Amino acid sequence: MQEIGFVGLGNMGMPMARNLAAAGYKLSVFNRSREKAERLAAETGVTVVSRPSDLGKPGGVVISMLADDAALEQVVKGPEGLSEGPAGIVHVSMSTVSPEISRRIGEIHTGRGDRYVSAPVFGRPEAAASRKLWICQSGDPSAAGQIRPILETLGQGIFDFGADPGAANIVKLAANFVIGAAIESMAEALALVEKNGIDRVRVMEMLSSTLFDCPIYKNYGSRIAAQKYDEVGFALPLGLKDIQLVQAASVAARVPMPFAAIVRDRLLATLAKGRGQLDWTAFALGVSDDAGLTH
Amino acid sequence: MQEIGFVGLGNMGMPMARNLAAAGYKLSVFNRSREKAERLAAETGVTVVSRPSDLGKPGGVVISMLADDAALEQVVKGPEGLSEGPAGIVHVSMSTVSPEISRRIGEIHTGRGDRYVSAPVFGRPEAAASRKLWICQSGDPSAAGQIRPILETLGQGIFDFGADPGAANIVKLAANFVIGAAIESMAEALALVEKNGIDRVRVMEMLSSTLFDCPIYKNYGSRIAAQKYDEVGFALPLGLKDIQLVQAASVAARVPMPFAAIVRDRLLATLAKGRGQLDWTAFALGVSDDAGLTH
Repeated sequence: MQEIGFVGLGNMGMPMARNLAAAGYKLSVFNRSREKAERLAAETGVTVVSRPSDLGKPGGVVISMLADDAALEQVVKGPEGLSEGPAGIVHVSMSTVSPEISRRIGEIHTGRGDRYVSAPVFGRPEAAASRKLWICQSGDPSAAGQIRPILETLGQGIFDFGADPGAANIVKLAANFVIGAAIESMAEALALVEKNGIDRVRVMEMLSSTLFDCPIYKNYGSRIAAQKYDEVGFALPLGLKDIQLVQAASVAARVPMPFAAIVRDRLLATLAKGRGQLDWTAFALGVSDDAGLTH
Repeated sequence: MQEIGFVGLGNMGMPMARNLAAAGYKLSVFNRSREKAERLAAETGVTVVSRPSDLGKPGGVVISMLADDAALEQVVKGPEGLSEGPAGIVHVSMSTVSPEISRRIGEIHTGRGDRYVSAPVFGRPEAAASRKLWICQSGDPSAAGQIRPILETLGQGIFDFGADPGAANIVKLAANFVIGAAIESMAEALALVEKNGIDRVRVMEMLSSTLFDCPIYKNYGSRIAAQKYDEVGFALPLGLKDIQLVQAASVAARVPMPFAAIVRDRLLATLAKGRGQLDWTAFALGVSDDAGLTH
């Protein structure tokens, strides 16, 4: 099995790295807070390295799963970053970041003789753990064959959106926006039924077993109906980050998106009310607040 | 088989009446424009009557499937309406109407010794034809047993929301609102990818086969991605009527619904631009217009 460098052992990266190790890949891992990497090493025998520049080998794959544009930029261009390590690597960037940073990082890699593929994922930590992620990829087409078995170890399906490294990020942001809009629309509908004396859980069960019989409406819908937001699959500040990326992309492309603006303000209000430690779905509480409902 | 009175042979009512006739029910039908009723009679042998008051028999079921509150009120309270016919009927109102009219009509029926059940349906005319409707019902519980086999002839599932005749209407309106919000969110997401040079059909296929693998995102999504709105399953003015009912219910219950306001204005703009003859999904064109896209 080929060796893989892996950087970023957060809520998503940790189960992904664990799955790669379980599949027999020989992993070198870097994480900013080293304890997490040591924990994974104790558990699976992966090698811990002290800097991103030690992750790459000519012809080898490095996977990054980071929180935001700044973290990705740091890992590539920062001191002891990938760009100070061996050239000729294949960098698979699986973070949800802006299309702009993907394009810029792609150019840096191309300039060094590396190959760069953007491959953001859909799915919460449970989906990462059970290898049920959906992956959309774009970027250097010559790397696709080499990384396919790796991506297939991580997810249940791969969708290719061509050579522009920013394309997969746009698709990922668009999808996260559609999820955010679904959360708001479920919250509005359920507040309406609740104030009419109708059981919100029962209505959500009906919707998500008929017209909206799909993962987002089932999983998010059951949380919103029951108003349980303590279990954090996707942190609220990251949700705000994504919606801000959606809005930046909408400004860049000149696409008015009124729903995105409403979701953005819901997320801001949720932070303002001191609920930033809850799952991002908790912005649905703002709809109930506005309707004078207690929860 | 028991006899059934049926009023309202529109896009939805016609296939529903046809299915009841095919299942062996002896139907008496009334339609404001009599030719449609005559056409159904020629095809299936149903009896055509000249006024709603001729549809009911004591203990018998009358189904109404009408365009709006005014039509329902006319059929019940107008000259030669149900309330001038025999008492003791079971009126099953399957139209998408306001909870207020349902409650008012329910009281009129109760006052006459009738029973009233509100049973609005989910599904477009194709679903009505193939008996794939979803039905939510509320109202007189003592009628539920008698009407169940009839509703099972029309749909694939029935959800009961208790004794308030308005409850099923609220649920139906809430669901139509969620559909409208899904249309807007798909349209915004697809305009964003299109302006980034990404194939909107491919993105929609990905979304509706993964996170959003459900009827609304598949059926509406493929129309929105391809921007084909000529085939009218649900007329745009009826979509506007429903969103107005949602807004009226939200005012009555004191539930701010910002997404509903945006969908309402999209529908108004679609009419203003002379596109009122298209399917209601066509309000998605307004998102493309705003993004400077031609279609």
